[in-house]
Amino acid sequence: MTGTSPARPVSRRRLLTGGALAAGGALSGAAAVTALRADDADVRTARAEPVARIGAAVEPFHGPRQAGVATEAQAHAAFVAFTLRPGTDRAALGRMLRLLSDDAARLTQGRPALADTEPELGLLPARLTVTFGFGPGLYTAAGVDDRRPPSVADLPAFPVDRLQTRWSGGDLLLQICADDPLTVAHAQRVLVKDSRPFATVRWVQQGFRRAAGAEPGHTQRNLFGQLDGTANPRPGGPLDTAVWVPDGPDWLRDSTTLVVRRISMDMETWDLLGRTDRELAVGRRLDTGAPLTGTDEHDEPDFAAVGPTGLTVIPDFAHLTRARVGEDRLRILRRPYNYDGVPAADGTADSGLVFASYQADIARQFLPIQRRLAEQDLLNEWTTPIGSAVFAIPPGCPEGGWVGQQLLA
Amino acid sequence: MTGTSPARPVSRRRLLTGGALAAGGALSGAAAVTALRADDADVRTARAEPVARIGAAVEPFHGPRQAGVATEAQAHAAFVAFTLRPGTDRAALGRMLRLLSDDAARLTQGRPALADTEPELGLLPARLTVTFGFGPGLYTAAGVDDRRPPSVADLPAFPVDRLQTRWSGGDLLLQICADDPLTVAHAQRVLVKDSRPFATVRWVQQGFRRAAGAEPGHTQRNLFGQLDGTANPRPGGPLDTAVWVPDGPDWLRDSTTLVVRRISMDMETWDLLGRTDRELAVGRRLDTGAPLTGTDEHDEPDFAAVGPTGLTVIPDFAHLTRARVGEDRLRILRRPYNYDGVPAADGTADSGLVFASYQADIARQFLPIQRRLAEQDLLNEWTTPIGSAVFAIPPGCPEGGWVGQQLLA
Ligand code: HEM
Ligand code: HEM
Repeated sequence: MTGTSPARPVSRRRLLTGGALAAGGALSGAAAVTALRADDADVRTARAEPVARIGAAVEPFHGPRQAGVATEAQAHAAFVAFTLRPGTDRAALGRMLRLLSDDAARLTQGRPALADTEPELGLLPARLTVTFGFGPGLYTAAGVDDRRPPSVADLPAFPVDRLQTRWSGGDLLLQICADDPLTVAHAQRVLVKDSRPFATVRWVQQGFRRAAGAEPGHTQRNLFGQLDGTANPRPGGPLDTAVWVPDGPDWLRDSTTLVVRRISMDMETWDLLGRTDRELAVGRRLDTGAPLTGTDEHDEPDFAAVGPTGLTVIPDFAHLTRARVGEDRLRILRRPYNYDGVPAADGTADSGLVFASYQADIARQFLPIQRRLAEQDLLNEWTTPIGSAVFAIPPGCPEGGWVGQQLLA
Repeated sequence: MTGTSPARPVSRRRLLTGGALAAGGALSGAAAVTALRADDADVRTARAEPVARIGAAVEPFHGPRQAGVATEAQAHAAFVAFTLRPGTDRAALGRMLRLLSDDAARLTQGRPALADTEPELGLLPARLTVTFGFGPGLYTAAGVDDRRPPSVADLPAFPVDRLQTRWSGGDLLLQICADDPLTVAHAQRVLVKDSRPFATVRWVQQGFRRAAGAEPGHTQRNLFGQLDGTANPRPGGPLDTAVWVPDGPDWLRDSTTLVVRRISMDMETWDLLGRTDRELAVGRRLDTGAPLTGTDEHDEPDFAAVGPTGLTVIPDFAHLTRARVGEDRLRILRRPYNYDGVPAADGTADSGLVFASYQADIARQFLPIQRRLAEQDLLNEWTTPIGSAVFAIPPGCPEGGWVGQQLLA
């Protein structure tokens, strides 16, 4: 898009007519470097020193559920949405997903992809996860509309929305997350290249959180300075109940769904507001993240507590009040990333959240919350949804399998 | 630019006519949160737990030389170039640089800026450095053209250049680097806001390297998969000689200069090339980074070594051969960052380097190398300069001082 040079064809000739050819000859004994298709083992042994914890840390790829959902959020993410090419049918999708699953299985374990042209960039997994999402169009292309979870469909329009096509929709999503930005860039490159015969890139949204090791054990902050993620369901009971489909046919069981909303955050007007007003807008303190009725981040908010004037301490229209859900099975798992584009000439920021929400059922869990927030939420004054997309996250796959096999094989 | 919502004025009224006002009243005793201008001490004590190494690590701001040059490169960078507004004269520049120096002095030490509206985002320095660069236009605006180092001027045009205005030039540069991406984003926001009365944003280039702690002690890799930085002068003797102006008036001594070139790397054609050809293009191995005549990354290349065919093992037109400089005082310090924008619909990558080179004198050190490379360098086939800017990096300042005071006070 931006900044790519006018394409110039590779002149292998120019390379080979300089000193290059001869030197290549001279080298052939000393350096048995094999081209293009890198041999994993060779490349790995070439790396002499052990790597440190952050680079070497590995998340499993295979299993009944996909990684990248319950996984503790990594520092960097690229959400890559594709449009299937005409003719990418069920069989072609099978080939595509076999290929991409194989890439993901290797890269997440710190091994280069099979056709990896930069194999050295595949050696530091840094907790890489690649999570596959299926948009509504994929079910149609594969002729399996009857297997599409009904709520995996464009969300209804909300009065707060100012959606842009360039950030919306998508037939296939790859959510690529790792604690290292080069690892994300390399995985994205490999997966985009291998998708080419089957799909075009529709949009890419890059995001970040605190660096790994910068503030271990803390809730991350967004660009408004808020602690963001406090009330998420915790792994184990509540998260499991909220996120994973517990039963049904094998293409549904252990699946989940993902809503990706690009939400711009108006730093200019937010920064004009005093701290008290900001804290009232959410119902939590900026420093500790404690509810306005408490002192610690994880104190239970008391929505009934009233002040001397007889009104609630946490405003009835605060984000916290409006977003709160009682029952575990109705909650959502938020896994958002900050984005920060290039400011305008006058300094106006291009900041916001790549808001990502996981839940077993969009209609039952996400929509009621989103409807309440769209209707009344003090925070709406400073936030605007500018992109929207929904995906089913199919179950994981066993070793040797591929994501989507239960649906498409 | 992209994705910002249509500006909507802040309705404090709306906030204050909901539950907000009353709740605010109810809060006033319990929570003495002060607005806008945050008190450093308060915010710091609000943070209960100690932070980990990566987040808490600090680089000095004050000193005879600016930080961010000899500083071991952090994981994330934003290069922010400004155009001075008409009327930003010497006196105004003094006010601007006092303000920005104060911001930088605080933020780099993990303290919020004075008028920090997101003070909690100012608490994790993560080795933040803010390096100030003066473009040719700043000297003119201040009426001190006679103090501009002569080679701080637009570079001559090179036949390989395909420069775009949107990535070129600039009167003032802030190079903001830290090991945490949120820290960089926050510092950028504060500094851009405080620059508003004096300057507009001309361009911003964001870049990354390996995450802190991902691969400590290793040379970073670029998106071609190459080890990039091997032959840099080391801190101590060679770096000092190459980078810092050793004498002259106080506005010149301990200064240096910076060339920022945005160089797009054509992943598409590079990926078609075999490994041997790639290694010949640079003269080093992809896995170990060793010169083609050696086995370890830091082995001295033997440019005279010939193979059985009688030609040099390291091609005469290899990047290594062409870029090599014998004398320490003629070398440059490369401090590049990878950039990776959004790929085009067909998957074409928007990748490259924000190539940043520090040297005492651009004419004596950078230009001869750049001229040789522009004339003959196998790597040119896959790299294209698309942006160019030059800056003087004035000396540092003592505590209580400001960057540029020797030139402008
Ligand atoms: C840029 C937009 C948004 C910002 C800045 C934001 C910010 C926050 C903050 C600061 C909190 C309190 C701390 C926490 O529990 O994480 C919170 C809670 C929450 N938010 Fe948002 N939010 C945004 C959009 C949304 C959207 C679109 C939804 C869902 C449709 C949502 C659902 C929730 C939920 C469910 C909670 C937890 C409420 C509770 O049970 O305590 N948020 N949000
Ligand atoms: C995208 C563009 C470029 C790429 C991918 C690139 C890549 C490399 C690589 C892989 C090396 C060998 C390892 C090392 O010592 O770092 C190297 C060395 C070097 N490059 Fe570049 N480079 C680029 C542009 C430039 C430019 C524009 C200059 C200066 C005008 C430059 C100057 C040098 C120097 C001085 C060396 C060290 C040579 C030595 O003494 O061994 N490079 N570069």
